Amino acid sequence: MRVQAAGGGDAVTDLLGFTMKALVYHGPGVKAWEVVARPTLVADTDAIVRVDTTTICGTDLHILKGDVPAMVDGRIIGHEAVGTVAEVGAAVQNMAVGDRVLVSCVSACGACRFCRESRYGQCTGGGGWILGNEIDGTQAEYVRVPFADNSTYPVPAGVADEALLMLADILPTGYEVGVLNGGVRPGDVVAVVGAGPIGLSAISGARLFSPSMVIAIDMAATRLEAAKQFGADVVINNREQDPIAAVLELTGGLGVDVAIEAVGVPATFELAADLVRPVGRVANIGVHGEPVTLHLERLWTRDVTITTGLVDTYSTPTLLRLLTSGQLDAQRFVTHRFGFDDFIRAYDVFARAGETGALKVTLSRDI
Amino acid sequence: MRVQAAGGGDAVTDLLGFTMKALVYHGPGVKAWEVVARPTLVADTDAIVRVDTTTICGTDLHILKGDVPAMVDGRIIGHEAVGTVAEVGAAVQNMAVGDRVLVSCVSACGACRFCRESRYGQCTGGGGWILGNEIDGTQAEYVRVPFADNSTYPVPAGVADEALLMLADILPTGYEVGVLNGGVRPGDVVAVVGAGPIGLSAISGARLFSPSMVIAIDMAATRLEAAKQFGADVVINNREQDPIAAVLELTGGLGVDVAIEAVGVPATFELAADLVRPVGRVANIGVHGEPVTLHLERLWTRDVTITTGLVDTYSTPTLLRLLTSGQLDAQRFVTHRFGFDDFIRAYDVFARAGETGALKVTLSRDI
Amino acid sequence: MRVQAAGGGDAVTDLLGFTMKALVYHGPGVKAWEVVARPTLVADTDAIVRVDTTTICGTDLHILKGDVPAMVDGRIIGHEAVGTVAEVGAAVQNMAVGDRVLVSCVSACGACRFCRESRYGQCTGGGGWILGNEIDGTQAEYVRVPFADNSTYPVPAGVADEALLMLADILPTGYEVGVLNGGVRPGDVVAVVGAGPIGLSAISGARLFSPSMVIAIDMAATRLEAAKQFGADVVINNREQDPIAAVLELTGGLGVDVAIEAVGVPATFELAADLVRPVGRVANIGVHGEPVTLHLERLWTRDVTITTGLVDTYSTPTLLRLLTSGQLDAQRFVTHRFGFDDFIRAYDVFARAGETGALKVTLSRDI
Amino acid sequence: MRVQAAGGGDAVTDLLGFTMKALVYHGPGVKAWEVVARPTLVADTDAIVRVDTTTICGTDLHILKGDVPAMVDGRIIGHEAVGTVAEVGAAVQNMAVGDRVLVSCVSACGACRFCRESRYGQCTGGGGWILGNEIDGTQAEYVRVPFADNSTYPVPAGVADEALLMLADILPTGYEVGVLNGGVRPGDVVAVVGAGPIGLSAISGARLFSPSMVIAIDMAATRLEAAKQFGADVVINNREQDPIAAVLELTGGLGVDVAIEAVGVPATFELAADLVRPVGRVANIGVHGEPVTLHLERLWTRDVTITTGLVDTYSTPTLLRLLTSGQLDAQRFVTHRFGFDDFIRAYDVFARAGETGALKVTLSRDI
Repeated sequence: MRVQAAGGGDAVTDLLGFTMKALVYHGPGVKAWEVVARPTLVADTDAIVRVDTTTICGTDLHILKGDVPAMVDGRIIGHEAVGTVAEVGAAVQNMAVGDRVLVSCVSACGACRFCRESRYGQCTGGGGWILGNEIDGTQAEYVRVPFADNSTYPVPAGVADEALLMLADILPTGYEVGVLNGGVRPGDVVAVVGAGPIGLSAISGARLFSPSMVIAIDMAATRLEAAKQFGADVVINNREQDPIAAVLELTGGLGVDVAIEAVGVPATFELAADLVRPVGRVANIGVHGEPVTLHLERLWTRDVTITTGLVDTYSTPTLLRLLTSGQLDAQRFVTHRFGFDDFIRAYDVFARAGETGALKVTLSRDI
Repeated sequence: MRVQAAGGGDAVTDLLGFTMKALVYHGPGVKAWEVVARPTLVADTDAIVRVDTTTICGTDLHILKGDVPAMVDGRIIGHEAVGTVAEVGAAVQNMAVGDRVLVSCVSACGACRFCRESRYGQCTGGGGWILGNEIDGTQAEYVRVPFADNSTYPVPAGVADEALLMLADILPTGYEVGVLNGGVRPGDVVAVVGAGPIGLSAISGARLFSPSMVIAIDMAATRLEAAKQFGADVVINNREQDPIAAVLELTGGLGVDVAIEAVGVPATFELAADLVRPVGRVANIGVHGEPVTLHLERLWTRDVTITTGLVDTYSTPTLLRLLTSGQLDAQRFVTHRFGFDDFIRAYDVFARAGETGALKVTLSRDI
Repeated sequence: MRVQAAGGGDAVTDLLGFTMKALVYHGPGVKAWEVVARPTLVADTDAIVRVDTTTICGTDLHILKGDVPAMVDGRIIGHEAVGTVAEVGAAVQNMAVGDRVLVSCVSACGACRFCRESRYGQCTGGGGWILGNEIDGTQAEYVRVPFADNSTYPVPAGVADEALLMLADILPTGYEVGVLNGGVRPGDVVAVVGAGPIGLSAISGARLFSPSMVIAIDMAATRLEAAKQFGADVVINNREQDPIAAVLELTGGLGVDVAIEAVGVPATFELAADLVRPVGRVANIGVHGEPVTLHLERLWTRDVTITTGLVDTYSTPTLLRLLTSGQLDAQRFVTHRFGFDDFIRAYDVFARAGETGALKVTLSRDI
Repeated sequence: MRVQAAGGGDAVTDLLGFTMKALVYHGPGVKAWEVVARPTLVADTDAIVRVDTTTICGTDLHILKGDVPAMVDGRIIGHEAVGTVAEVGAAVQNMAVGDRVLVSCVSACGACRFCRESRYGQCTGGGGWILGNEIDGTQAEYVRVPFADNSTYPVPAGVADEALLMLADILPTGYEVGVLNGGVRPGDVVAVVGAGPIGLSAISGARLFSPSMVIAIDMAATRLEAAKQFGADVVINNREQDPIAAVLELTGGLGVDVAIEAVGVPATFELAADLVRPVGRVANIGVHGEPVTLHLERLWTRDVTITTGLVDTYSTPTLLRLLTSGQLDAQRFVTHRFGFDDFIRAYDVFARAGETGALKVTLSRDI
């Protein structure tokens, strides 16, 4: 294997054989910030990236509950990072040691049927969502990134790392799986069921298409308050009022043009399907653990379209342009910042979002 | 009301105050071919059409079971006809007495939000599927057609009435709700679940896009035989073999690009959803009477699109061109032909399709 | 003909046989605000609308030059109005005397092939752009509106007439023919060649899709100043600098995603075609009087799409929602306001827009 | 560089340092089948392919006239081949020595903006149409294929090499640049201007969408005869009759839905633009050497769309499925077959297609 010699300096040299610290999964409910071996190149298309900033995803909490079957004891969690290239395999074309990159949650072989159609999340050539799932992830000092050319993006000038980090997963997820699958158009009325980080991301993305009204529905007042900050015109607390009646009143009895599900339980999916007007669209983003009931006895006549999806990150170049041109405010997702040694505390703050008000927490080498 | 004077002749004159015969619904399980009042113009946009040929739809059997809530005792059944214009209201622009027309199953006000977007099936201005449902239908010697300009099509030269009649409902339904909603493209593998008349219509429509393989799935050998005649490349009897295993083997383990549901029970919808590949589409045509289970715990990651729909008949002009140019063989749907006085027998033959091999039965004035 | 009796009051009663004042074309260069006969209903689908506010379009200046062949001596100019229904034909369904309506520049028969596909501007059933062109127009105290149900929109509550009037032509033209034909998407770089009212309308419409950069190109400093007000990020005076070099520098040598032509002379079309990147789109809005040169020797390899179009007004319902929800600022187009008796002066101010800074001038009954 | 050892046998071993024969360009009008050095791997992503069958493209005749600026004295011509992998670079993932592959006319880096959007023909990462243009081509015993993983396709079982070879350029060009850019839909009337190999390819591709009528226009009776064989319903010799008048008569005065230009001179492009109906599409495939006149003074109101394009080969997987399923008859393009040593004669037969009736000529190692 041909390995470029790193250029010197304190952190990016002398990798091989050394150790690092990482957030390791040890079975349901058990995690530790502990010393492990540093990753090394496996395939010619790999890169090793030093992690400068990473974050915790709601999916990581699912992993810790034991809900993600590919995850095994001893594997490092995490699938989002901004970092610095430390080493590249012989076949890597588009990056050099020392380059700063965004590491995407989705890796892409670039050659399979799905990658050829920009559906990287469905990659059958060894990519897809593998980081912190099928292989070691980004909540570590270093991470091995497979198919590095197709799975990273250069850090643009003038963008804060923590803003850019929101493009590793959450913003393309809300935009692709919620907004684009939902086909949001100017003038639409859009309902977003669930105002957690993914729901807020969908609200941010929907606003790019100038809807006439965005309605956020959640049971937590703090989340609804956040939804207003992110651009919801109307918020409905479905603990306090009937969301279907409220939406029908807001839409002259018609229902919404697009309903985006951003929770992942049967009740919220069924609510989304009940909110949508004839010829409308329901875009599911939520991670579901059990089947839902689809009321085809009502929906079969209504010309509705229901979509599901894993993020593909085909929109990342677009979102990068929107971020650098100031059309997208990514930084406002970041509510709490930690150093790597505070990883366990960061998980705690993020897991207790209801109390702490956490949206996204970041962990950085330099804090 | 201004009524054009009919031009003389035996059947099209002297309408007002006269009687006719019609197939009348008298509550669940009860129908009769009996004498009723002839229809008269109600709105300026109405036409009265003398029915020359009509047919029985699977939906009419549902009506007779009592499953269609808008249907009341005393109403005439039927929503498909080819006929001759007998009388037109003052505001009708595009037809004259004596013109021969196809009466579509969907009436369109032409001005509501949905009609403006060619979604006539969802008309909120008084149209939609109203014939033989909300108002008297076409299984009669005469029928009142509301919004006549937007709800009928001139009979093109050189086309047999019984072929044209297939464009009143069945062919646009299979084409719009199955094939176009399913997004069939050249080279696709398409599974059609259910090989009754609607499934066969979806097969006919799918073939227009040159799929690489059409797979028909049904439990009746006679229907699968018909499916082969209509263009299925492979047929699967799901009473005899596991259709999922068979389809995965045919598609290299991937699943089909498009699955079209043409039955209307939970098991067939769930089968369709199980057959589809990642990034594939499930198009529901079936009339469902109860909820189905949607396995979002498997589908949420698979980028699938599920559609429902009532026919809009926006494709009728296209299908007329295909019919007259010989690209579409509509006549092969017609397996049995009756005169109006044999209406009760025709229903019997159609209802026992499993034994009689009936696909579509026609009833004509001139037989 | 059945005519609804008007409800009384000063202006809407006793129409038949009376006169009114109107802006009449009398051959190239000659117009007069003079007394003519009030219009009366001709077809059952007509309405007579009392004009409350109207405006002058750039096309009206073309008419006065003698450039529009359908226009004849004695015909009333104008195709934009907000008014009050004074009389309706027997077949008009959706409006009553006294209703306030937006009169669209495009009339639609609602039944022809093109109307069925929402392409009302191409109507072959007697509609299209006929007002102030093939029949008398809106620059008058009263106007006859053919196909009234399909050619007018109810005035929504809370919207100023002069803002709404911008939806009669200019805003749907910029949006449909420029922005939607151009396929503007979030993150795009959009160049608009020509910053007159139509170009500004295209800029307003493009902003609805959150482009990363809108570049306005014009030779008049005042228009470029207006372009900034309407949302251009960068303005280029192509009298002062090479617009192609400037755009290539702004886009890293690539060219723009979408170029919108809003002038109507060969040089500006050719400039638009030179600005666009591979796989980009050129949307022509300009009214052209002579052929242009298309450099296929360069463009044949570049995967470009070029569109032309007359406004169809299919987007009017969407724009109405955007107007009432505050997403669209229509009122800022109005720079000068006149009473009907100042019509000649209003034409003069509009024709000398370079000096007067006029964008849109309005003429109202109540001033 | 890591080179897989070839598996033995006469032709695929001991490559390095050896010679081969190839068709070499030596300036305008001069070509020779002569001995040159065998190619060797340059980049890790290269493969060396032994050419089993190749063909001559119309573009190669342009090259020989000196019309293609990138072409230099001493370079091997040709961009289409079916062959056997002889050697692969270290980074090649998806093929091994001995595999049989289709070599596409377009190479794709797989990572640039355009490759990420499947627009491989516009690749800015070193790919695009480079074979036989910017680097040595396929009219040789061996060819170096850059970005081999993204630029070749495995030979499917049961397909003749000469049929498969038609998918290297001609069939995807007609399908993508003509049929898909033209947006052909079931029921459409499609005019193809020019019935040479590319025009015939467009006719083949259009038929996949079940048009109601395909009209071929050419000045050569033999080509029109071929057009009938390939599926044209009507042929027009525009030397003998006015094609515009003929098409208007065939379409009730409307014009065609889609006009495909497959010649590459101003007159044929202008004809295509004159044939198209309002809201229709003109798809240019022709290679143009000079500007054309676009009659915007007529077209600006007609809602037409004009497209250009270089083939991207994103449709190759689809066309492979259609070929193996028997939906596409590729073999009928091949009219003449030669051995490699007859290369000069093959060029002569192809260049005199008017006399020889040649569509595609193939050259094979084994003849």
